[in-house]
Amino acid sequence: MRADLDRLMAERDLQALIVTGGEQPNTLRAWICNGIDIHGGMVVKPKGQPATLIVTSMEIEEAKKSGLAVLTLDDFNFSEALKQVEGDRARAQTILWGRIIERFAIAPGKIGVYGTGDIHVWIERSRLLAEHYPQHPVVGENGLTLFDIAMRTKDADEIAIIQQIAQQTNEVLQATWDFIAGHRAEGESVVKADGSPLTVGDVKRFIRRELLDRELECPSMIFAQGRDAGFPHSRGTESDPLQLGQPIVFDLFPQTMGGGYCHDVTRTWSIGYARPQVQQMYDQVMTAFQRAVDAFEEAGQPAHTLQDAALDCLEGYGHPTQRSHPGTQVGYVHSLGHGIGLNIHERPSLHHLVKEDVLEQGNVITIEPGVYYPEQGIGVRVEDSFIVDAGGALVSITPFRKDLVLPLRG
Amino acid sequence: MRADLDRLMAERDLQALIVTGGEQPNTLRAWICNGIDIHGGMVVKPKGQPATLIVTSMEIEEAKKSGLAVLTLDDFNFSEALKQVEGDRARAQTILWGRIIERFAIAPGKIGVYGTGDIHVWIERSRLLAEHYPQHPVVGENGLTLFDIAMRTKDADEIAIIQQIAQQTNEVLQATWDFIAGHRAEGESVVKADGSPLTVGDVKRFIRRELLDRELECPSMIFAQGRDAGFPHSRGTESDPLQLGQPIVFDLFPQTMGGGYCHDVTRTWSIGYARPQVQQMYDQVMTAFQRAVDAFEEAGQPAHTLQDAALDCLEGYGHPTQRSHPGTQVGYVHSLGHGIGLNIHERPSLHHLVKEDVLEQGNVITIEPGVYYPEQGIGVRVEDSFIVDAGGALVSITPFRKDLVLPLRG
Repeated sequence: MRADLDRLMAERDLQALIVTGGEQPNTLRAWICNGIDIHGGMVVKPKGQPATLIVTSMEIEEAKKSGLAVLTLDDFNFSEALKQVEGDRARAQTILWGRIIERFAIAPGKIGVYGTGDIHVWIERSRLLAEHYPQHPVVGENGLTLFDIAMRTKDADEIAIIQQIAQQTNEVLQATWDFIAGHRAEGESVVKADGSPLTVGDVKRFIRRELLDRELECPSMIFAQGRDAGFPHSRGTESDPLQLGQPIVFDLFPQTMGGGYCHDVTRTWSIGYARPQVQQMYDQVMTAFQRAVDAFEEAGQPAHTLQDAALDCLEGYGHPTQRSHPGTQVGYVHSLGHGIGLNIHERPSLHHLVKEDVLEQGNVITIEPGVYYPEQGIGVRVEDSFIVDAGGALVSITPFRKDLVLPLRG
Repeated sequence: MRADLDRLMAERDLQALIVTGGEQPNTLRAWICNGIDIHGGMVVKPKGQPATLIVTSMEIEEAKKSGLAVLTLDDFNFSEALKQVEGDRARAQTILWGRIIERFAIAPGKIGVYGTGDIHVWIERSRLLAEHYPQHPVVGENGLTLFDIAMRTKDADEIAIIQQIAQQTNEVLQATWDFIAGHRAEGESVVKADGSPLTVGDVKRFIRRELLDRELECPSMIFAQGRDAGFPHSRGTESDPLQLGQPIVFDLFPQTMGGGYCHDVTRTWSIGYARPQVQQMYDQVMTAFQRAVDAFEEAGQPAHTLQDAALDCLEGYGHPTQRSHPGTQVGYVHSLGHGIGLNIHERPSLHHLVKEDVLEQGNVITIEPGVYYPEQGIGVRVEDSFIVDAGGALVSITPFRKDLVLPLRG
């Protein structure tokens, strides 16, 4: 939570935190600005003081929505600096840095710089700033960062938003189920009223409209049938006609349009009927899911213990896994899950080799075991999102039913 | 264009180019992968050789869509390296870097690293790599980069896509005009059939559906009325009811859903009638627009000359400008325009202080003068996108009419 920042900064001997980037979506900047990402803005948080947002004068109105104190580049005479160096923005930025250090009275010591931005710029800029301001070394973090730690526990406001997006996502799942169910079969194909095939693209267009009506988006949603389902990150093929009896992996991870908190859910559907082999694998994945959930006993527990339970279960059924066969492209090929928030992938990690993450109150995580056999045209995954609530209980926020077979009514 | 990369690398003494990042949208990576952005992928382009895309094994199917040669982390025994360092990803990445240098036989010399990623990671990683591989210094670029230069001229395939998105955007403008025009007035308010007000939010929802049907998106579109129009980056207020006689700045910059080439257009509309003061400022901005377009004589001309013409024109009418009153928040407060492509803002820049950019064949740029007086409830901007075509002519790709007054028919 944001309240943890001063302590985390102190542990890292930081005199100030700067969160910056460019116009790209920037989740760390959005998070420290109370959910509002102001493109191009820079946040300065000196040790023990509240954060200030610095923007161009054109962004003032948008910046105020963050609730932070707002300053503009004009407050630092940036135009004059730019003129002084004949339009050389790189040198003007260096001058600006010095004025920021002065204005916020940042004591000699490390300045931590975080955010999403141009790698090529910051490789050079960190060197330039080190030369010009040797009393204020610019440092980053590689590995588990203070933002990873602070963002993995959500405050009550964030939980409320996350619950709302979960509820809206559930509505979209129901609407999608009903949409498909309202069609009829011709032979092994699912068809529209006019007899033309219902395609993956048709379904995705339907889902996007449902998301749009709720001001949500999920550009990279997965709706992958048959062999596509066997490749966990295949988004599916838009021209594919929907077929009876084929496993479909449907992974929906919407967030507020333009950036915001995420929900993450996967269901596997087989229209009309399920082949015995698919039904068996589905039952096995559902068992692994339940074993993982049941492995949670209390807050403070290492996160990998849930994955250990899922691995034991699926290896017991004879599936190759990341643990038994590192690098395998068939079987249970991925980790159990991850934290979610403003980013689709946050800490804690539920990978079997990540020993340092624990499950604690305020975490929002996914649990998503799956097995994949593309050459047999099979992929199965089941995923809910969970909150570790204030009482230390692991609670699913994804109520949508986990039925495999989707019967047609049309 | 991509064909320029070897020359640009040679000018910078680069033995190899690496384009990387994380899961965030990454336009440089998308561009070098022929328009397909594979989240988490790393592109390695040794001097004089084609580019190779390195991904996790789970991304193989998606990666192949790029048309590049594809390798996976398994081809570099990454899992074994991770195990060797007990799951420490930072150290494993350092080992991977050495294996990449070896596999691609990258001769001693500079490696240029580019992309959109975690600033805090790359500040530390560039230091770590410098220590471990002193024969291969990691460098970036701050200022006009080789990608800025290469991406500012579009090849024929890119121009075709850009023309198509321009055409689709034109359809959306027409549909939006017709949607508003199909309403009626009650007093000074625009209302729906049931008498309830038509709001900015209603119009934005309409526009989003039109974009969605064309697989386009524009999360941050601007539809700003009255005082909001006076702040160039105000997105507008969703609850605002549309009023007669109020200037509305409508800035639409869609791109293919999930990332892709952009179009950029602004129209200013006043529903029913225009106040004389607004009409006058509109005519002035239209004149400045034409003067800027007419200032273009031939490819090779400095880009700022077009802005000089617009500045001369609007200063002549008595408006404060960025040039006459640096930092002004009223009048002509911004530059004339910018390049567009996979990024909404690319080179060339049409800022009056940027002397080094020229207009050349293959450029796609915006021309967008405007004046802003929020305390008078006025903002006016007119923007088209243009191509400098193969014959060296400046050609608008935004045909939508530039009428100020939008008459109601409902």
